[in-house]
Amino acid sequence: MKEHHIPKNSIITVAGTVGVGKSTLTKTLAKRLGFKTSLEEVDHNPYLEKFYHDFERWSFHLQIYFLAERFKEQKTIFEAGGGFVQDRSIYEDTGIFAKMHADKGTMSKVDYKTYTSLFEAMVMTPYFPHPDVLIYLEGDLENILNRIEQRGREMELQTSRSYWEEMHTRYENWISGFNACPVLKLRIEDYDLLNDENSIENIVDQIASVIHDNQKK
Amino acid sequence: MKEHHIPKNSIITVAGTVGVGKSTLTKTLAKRLGFKTSLEEVDHNPYLEKFYHDFERWSFHLQIYFLAERFKEQKTIFEAGGGFVQDRSIYEDTGIFAKMHADKGTMSKVDYKTYTSLFEAMVMTPYFPHPDVLIYLEGDLENILNRIEQRGREMELQTSRSYWEEMHTRYENWISGFNACPVLKLRIEDYDLLNDENSIENIVDQIASVIHDNQKK
Repeated sequence: MKEHHIPKNSIITVAGTVGVGKSTLTKTLAKRLGFKTSLEEVDHNPYLEKFYHDFERWSFHLQIYFLAERFKEQKTIFEAGGGFVQDRSIYEDTGIFAKMHADKGTMSKVDYKTYTSLFEAMVMTPYFPHPDVLIYLEGDLENILNRIEQRGREMELQTSRSYWEEMHTRYENWISGFNACPVLKLRIEDYDLLNDENSIENIVDQIASVIHDNQKK
Repeated sequence: MKEHHIPKNSIITVAGTVGVGKSTLTKTLAKRLGFKTSLEEVDHNPYLEKFYHDFERWSFHLQIYFLAERFKEQKTIFEAGGGFVQDRSIYEDTGIFAKMHADKGTMSKVDYKTYTSLFEAMVMTPYFPHPDVLIYLEGDLENILNRIEQRGREMELQTSRSYWEEMHTRYENWISGFNACPVLKLRIEDYDLLNDENSIENIVDQIASVIHDNQKK
């Protein structure tokens, strides 16, 4: 395997809309670098089911739960000395999902203000271990919808096209204002992890240069 | 005024049950040391009134709100370079009030677990700016009840004696297990800030020695 120039203690986070391929890249990249993975914890969530039955009653609880879990995960990664690839960032919980609830009224303005002020106090500070690079996966909506189709998760298949369209737009708006750490944008149409072994090498090189460019600052 | 030996950047937090005299000591001490005060923010709280009408519905929101506000306050104090006396600590929100809700069932076990895991992730870490000394005010329940009587706050006067008795016991249990930072215990029967000018000098000397003892560690 070709030598790579990504520091052993790097923290790499993969962001992007539902179905765009975060988990696949997270696992492939971690394997290639000999890094550990930090994957989304879905099953122990005590609020998800209650939330799906009553958005307004439980959206605040759900988002606070995600914030706590993500914050702990980030600290564990930092205290373990880095060397992790992380599937979805703490920034998306706030910038995409909590914001969507607030815009749609499923989270009250007061609750959203409490939530975001907690997020800013906890995360948007030098004490919080921000990733060395956030890889932002983007792609054409049609390609992403095909992937969601192929993946075949029941809840996702029942979700309306307009929801995915809105999510796609929200992600584009979010990343355009994102500056909490260095970003590497990858188009899913430009690589093929499953059928082209070289794809990952090219991505590794791009990550290394982003990290190096920012370490010189 | 006599020279004192408390470092200019110290963070001093005053803890103790309702009515024991935290605010009086906070203000007198800050004035004597030329420090700033960090006082309890009661009026902007968007949940307090809703909470008093429906404990179970709003206890989680209220406690998360306090946690966010207290966390921001602690960071502001730290980033201002210290030199503050703080009225009530972030530890009491969790150790006394949130715990009381959980014990009485006004906060569900799931919510309490989410809340405490967030608190531990955020606060019980070396990154969090813990106070240089926590002054714990204690006293006989009868003396404290007299003070509450004299203070004459409507909501406190309507609160049953058993509530204050329970709070008194909870504080004793809490402080016996507290170890997040150095503690100076003061009995309210041992000083009189209003009528004895020397009282504050004696307290200042005790604070200085606690801070110095712990700086040598």
